[in-house]
Amino acid sequence: MLKYQQIADEIEQYINQHDLKQGDKLPVLEQLMRQYAVSKSTITKALELLERKGVIFQLRGSGIFVRRHNRPGYMSLFSTQGFKRNLGDRVLTSDVLDLSIMKPDETVSQNLGISTEADVYHIERIRYVDGELFCVEESFYVKEIVPYLNREIVTDSIFDYIQSALGITIGFSDMYMQVGRLQEKEARLLQLNIGDPTLRIESIFHLSNGTPFDYSRITYHYEHSQFVIQANGPYL
Amino acid sequence: MLKYQQIADEIEQYINQHDLKQGDKLPVLEQLMRQYAVSKSTITKALELLERKGVIFQLRGSGIFVRRHNRPGYMSLFSTQGFKRNLGDRVLTSDVLDLSIMKPDETVSQNLGISTEADVYHIERIRYVDGELFCVEESFYVKEIVPYLNREIVTDSIFDYIQSALGITIGFSDMYMQVGRLQEKEARLLQLNIGDPTLRIESIFHLSNGTPFDYSRITYHYEHSQFVIQANGPYL
Repeated sequence: MLKYQQIADEIEQYINQHDLKQGDKLPVLEQLMRQYAVSKSTITKALELLERKGVIFQLRGSGIFVRRHNRPGYMSLFSTQGFKRNLGDRVLTSDVLDLSIMKPDETVSQNLGISTEADVYHIERIRYVDGELFCVEESFYVKEIVPYLNREIVTDSIFDYIQSALGITIGFSDMYMQVGRLQEKEARLLQLNIGDPTLRIESIFHLSNGTPFDYSRITYHYEHSQFVIQANGPYL
Repeated sequence: MLKYQQIADEIEQYINQHDLKQGDKLPVLEQLMRQYAVSKSTITKALELLERKGVIFQLRGSGIFVRRHNRPGYMSLFSTQGFKRNLGDRVLTSDVLDLSIMKPDETVSQNLGISTEADVYHIERIRYVDGELFCVEESFYVKEIVPYLNREIVTDSIFDYIQSALGITIGFSDMYMQVGRLQEKEARLLQLNIGDPTLRIESIFHLSNGTPFDYSRITYHYEHSQFVIQANGPYL
């Protein structure tokens, strides 16, 4: 973790621990620099990161303010996509249904921009939040980029592993969302009925150089998935 | 529109007109400065804006690259939330069902952080994309901030009007998403059946100083709403 990320984490923890509310003012830049004993560029990058994450907003000439939504049941869509083990104070666990190496079909190879002859890791998991059924996830990792995965890693956080152990820098993702009805297998895994509503999200995760390395399809349990997106402008 | 926003628009148009693909390299910073005859800080801000919008990605030491998803049927979730008249090459139109001034109920007053004695504009619209039923939207604007709306404005783009005519600077929004089933009135308006799946998004839009001015509830037609979110990291 880079210095500015660490500082951003510390500021976010401070906001949470002191239960600051939206609109509460944080110390000015100079004071934050002294407080965390870092340079102006580090604190500026930390604040930019927190702004992107929806933790603060900055108002030129007025200061730095806390940004906080107030609906406890809603999880950040982007955090759940990153799939941390902890979502705030909620705990994410997984049942691994499959972990295997295979050749991708047409859809998978197109989304990953690889040949149907290349190897991919195929992972299928049921995921729980605080023990409650949350989603079924199928994901495909390009083996040339992520050469090794095992059951322990995929039970835990795959992103955590590939960033910390493999030193891979994740860049950006394209997420495709739509609402539909559950099919037989999904309904069974989510303990719902065939035809029940569901949210499906397909994501393509890219390295920071733009190469896709992970294509995933998630089917959410509609009763247990409420998301918040803290968006920044522009709106035109 | 500020200079850097205008330059960002021009660069985006260039990418679209030349049908550039993801990974295509754009000219270096210095060349863009010359080409658009602007300062380094203007071009830097334009590129940051394009990066946030998912139009480009920048790779330190390597250059500026086009970012493009390749699913034509999918609309940007954030663009549709901003509700421009044009979504790429698709056209958004509205039927206004109601435009009135009222006192907010508890839910609305809480989301807007105002008293139940304050006035709000209540707007109800059915919205179409290329003539196809897209969503039903109910929204509430704080009258103290948006003092005047008429039927012509709300048939068109409200955000466009309040930004250009009232000079209001929109800051950020909190969007709450969940999947559910259509109730009677929504089903009728969307010409679907009661109990059909739907995506609901509640949004609270804030001025750049953090004051909420618009609370909206949108119920999407599940067969005509497929969204893409072009997300930037971090994922941990």
